Amino acid sequence: MSKNLSEVLFSEKNNVRETSSLIANSGSKKHQRQHQSTLDGQQSVGWYRLLKLLQWSWQGIDIIDCYEVLAKISASTNPRTDSNLLDTVIGFRSGNWSYEWSKKAMTYQKQANQYSQDGDTQQAQQHYYLASQLYSVASYPHLKGDENSIQAQTLAVTNYRQSFMHNRHALLKEIQVPFQGKQVTTFLHLPNDDVIHPVVIVSAGIDTLQCDFLPLFERYLKPAGIAMLTVDMPGVGFSNHLKLTQDTSLLHQAVLQHVADIPWVDQSRVALMGMRMGANALNRLAYVEPHRAKAVVSVGAAVASVFDDINRFKQLPVMTLDCLASRMQLQKSDASYLYQHCVPFSLIKQGLLGRKKVKTPCLSIGHSDDLMCSEQDLKLMARISYESEAKIIDKSPIFDSYLITLQYSAQWLAKHLQE
Amino acid sequence: MSKNLSEVLFSEKNNVRETSSLIANSGSKKHQRQHQSTLDGQQSVGWYRLLKLLQWSWQGIDIIDCYEVLAKISASTNPRTDSNLLDTVIGFRSGNWSYEWSKKAMTYQKQANQYSQDGDTQQAQQHYYLASQLYSVASYPHLKGDENSIQAQTLAVTNYRQSFMHNRHALLKEIQVPFQGKQVTTFLHLPNDDVIHPVVIVSAGIDTLQCDFLPLFERYLKPAGIAMLTVDMPGVGFSNHLKLTQDTSLLHQAVLQHVADIPWVDQSRVALMGMRMGANALNRLAYVEPHRAKAVVSVGAAVASVFDDINRFKQLPVMTLDCLASRMQLQKSDASYLYQHCVPFSLIKQGLLGRKKVKTPCLSIGHSDDLMCSEQDLKLMARISYESEAKIIDKSPIFDSYLITLQYSAQWLAKHLQE
Repeated sequence: MSKNLSEVLFSEKNNVRETSSLIANSGSKKHQRQHQSTLDGQQSVGWYRLLKLLQWSWQGIDIIDCYEVLAKISASTNPRTDSNLLDTVIGFRSGNWSYEWSKKAMTYQKQANQYSQDGDTQQAQQHYYLASQLYSVASYPHLKGDENSIQAQTLAVTNYRQSFMHNRHALLKEIQVPFQGKQVTTFLHLPNDDVIHPVVIVSAGIDTLQCDFLPLFERYLKPAGIAMLTVDMPGVGFSNHLKLTQDTSLLHQAVLQHVADIPWVDQSRVALMGMRMGANALNRLAYVEPHRAKAVVSVGAAVASVFDDINRFKQLPVMTLDCLASRMQLQKSDASYLYQHCVPFSLIKQGLLGRKKVKTPCLSIGHSDDLMCSEQDLKLMARISYESEAKIIDKSPIFDSYLITLQYSAQWLAKHLQE
Repeated sequence: MSKNLSEVLFSEKNNVRETSSLIANSGSKKHQRQHQSTLDGQQSVGWYRLLKLLQWSWQGIDIIDCYEVLAKISASTNPRTDSNLLDTVIGFRSGNWSYEWSKKAMTYQKQANQYSQDGDTQQAQQHYYLASQLYSVASYPHLKGDENSIQAQTLAVTNYRQSFMHNRHALLKEIQVPFQGKQVTTFLHLPNDDVIHPVVIVSAGIDTLQCDFLPLFERYLKPAGIAMLTVDMPGVGFSNHLKLTQDTSLLHQAVLQHVADIPWVDQSRVALMGMRMGANALNRLAYVEPHRAKAVVSVGAAVASVFDDINRFKQLPVMTLDCLASRMQLQKSDASYLYQHCVPFSLIKQGLLGRKKVKTPCLSIGHSDDLMCSEQDLKLMARISYESEAKIIDKSPIFDSYLITLQYSAQWLAKHLQE
């Protein structure tokens, strides 16, 4: 890391807007003591953000690093937007969420540079990867207009690319997908470029970046010879300029159609895998493009009940509401107001879920106690076609359920992508 | 790993008693749907054991490995002691807790052997360490008479030793402490043996092994030049033959007195650090041996309220009750019955906590919502001496609070152990 960038990155900025203040919300809401565990991680009293420790750990981040950063944020005496919420320190300086995570990320980036210079490619790859993941958390939850977040996002992507430049066992290709007069960057992860691979298009929740899912590829898809094409949801990352609308699958449809132009993958063997709102988009896509996708996996899909029942919707964590508002380019996230704009996301109301049938096999996975995706939703998704199935988990922690089932999902995908 | 050991280890045994059936309990209790989050990790519906994913991740275990093992256990169709509890598959075979974790551990052990043969000491060290940690989870919660557990414990220790044989940056010495006519093995972790080090005696809960705390040493104590001496609680690990009684500090007192005979540490600079029941023992020790310990740190100490109030006690997870019964060599863990035996553990009832004063500074850390350790307990512990302090966390998840504060604890210890 050049001294220059370090200086630029860590110059104190106190005039930027603090993340939790970007979306207007009723003051009382931000204080709500919610103990609701969701698939997205535990909501903790005293924090604006959902602390996704298990997810971050799954991504490869050292949990001890997480605790050290959280301890620094907790202990800061700098002014906060809301003194009851630890992660709302104002300005890019000590105690601020983006600042502290970026600082930790930079230590890995520096080590990576050193390893790279020393010719230790394996360590360089690993350290660039870890830097990218820490920068991604620094950016989290990636709200539009969050200056600190945007800076961290850029570094997350740079380090992710660097990591692959040192990777001898997999390739990263950046695929520019033409969409609405612009190009949207997607990441194609390839086991190698010797042969043509089947491919899975992956999108997750609206609070994730596309660089957050490498273990899915490394552990499960690559060993099965499957490529992974990740797409940022509208309003996030490379799709930051796009607005999330009820036609959630618009961008993904363009990506799916573009697959025919990608030389390394087999356009006749394309599957879809989505989580949360990503599963909304990809489920919808399965209805809209019934002949292009060979299979679809939905994990904890936000497809119906959460948009059909205001009481469910109102229980969503404040951060999640802010994310929804941000992606939809709305200025406030008051639940009653936001709900009116989200009702059309229901694939039941759109006349698809439970109404229309296609031939694409669908695996829908979720937890019976999940706020975002009810048991009924899971069953409806499995009715899309005759070969479909619902995997409903009622034991084990809610969050874990989807990580526990990834291996199963990958095997299911591999089966459906066989020639 | 020799083929022989592999065969011995993985021969199916269906006649051993399954862990959850070792301690008699009312059937209804095992089904109790408790959602109580404790400092010890989340209790999950459908599991007998507390799933301490964050703790295991902190120990260095790959969370993806955890999910893979839990998925295998979940999916098993072999008979269970209780069909509602996933981790109660009977016999040492596919789906059984100890079997699946041991299998994962063995893959690391084999890799470690290979690295060792190839002369890659760093990788060998790391892989032996990970094997030890996975074997420790295989043994968890280490109930007396659990045959599968005992086998896994032995392997945890063997691999822990092997890891240190490949460690160039720290030393492990096994210290035999004479106690009640026998020897109890404790582990002394040393930054080096060039100089004499101050030392911290560490004991944690009754569901942990002494090999579960290496990051505390590696990350926080070693950099401060402090040695760590770990002691298994009575009834667990190397102290398996001992009975936990109201005089909880008896064994630790013998250890503390024995420090004078250990050549690598400075007997005038000894501190104590305990968690849960370990903190009961070490707090008690601070009262009993006021001149030998320079400082004591208690984390989420089970010292009073949980033993003074049957309603608190009854809310403890079944697994925790079973552990208590096992350490006390009682045959059943029915809460009302067990409570009568646990009442004397209260250091208030023993006339110590809040009654007696000594000069030893005490740092007591905990969460205001913790079942095992109330805010009042924390305040009482801080009254042991004038230099003491209570650190009461009310934000952040309960469990995280103690990992978040380890760095602070270590700094506090280093300050008090200065010459």
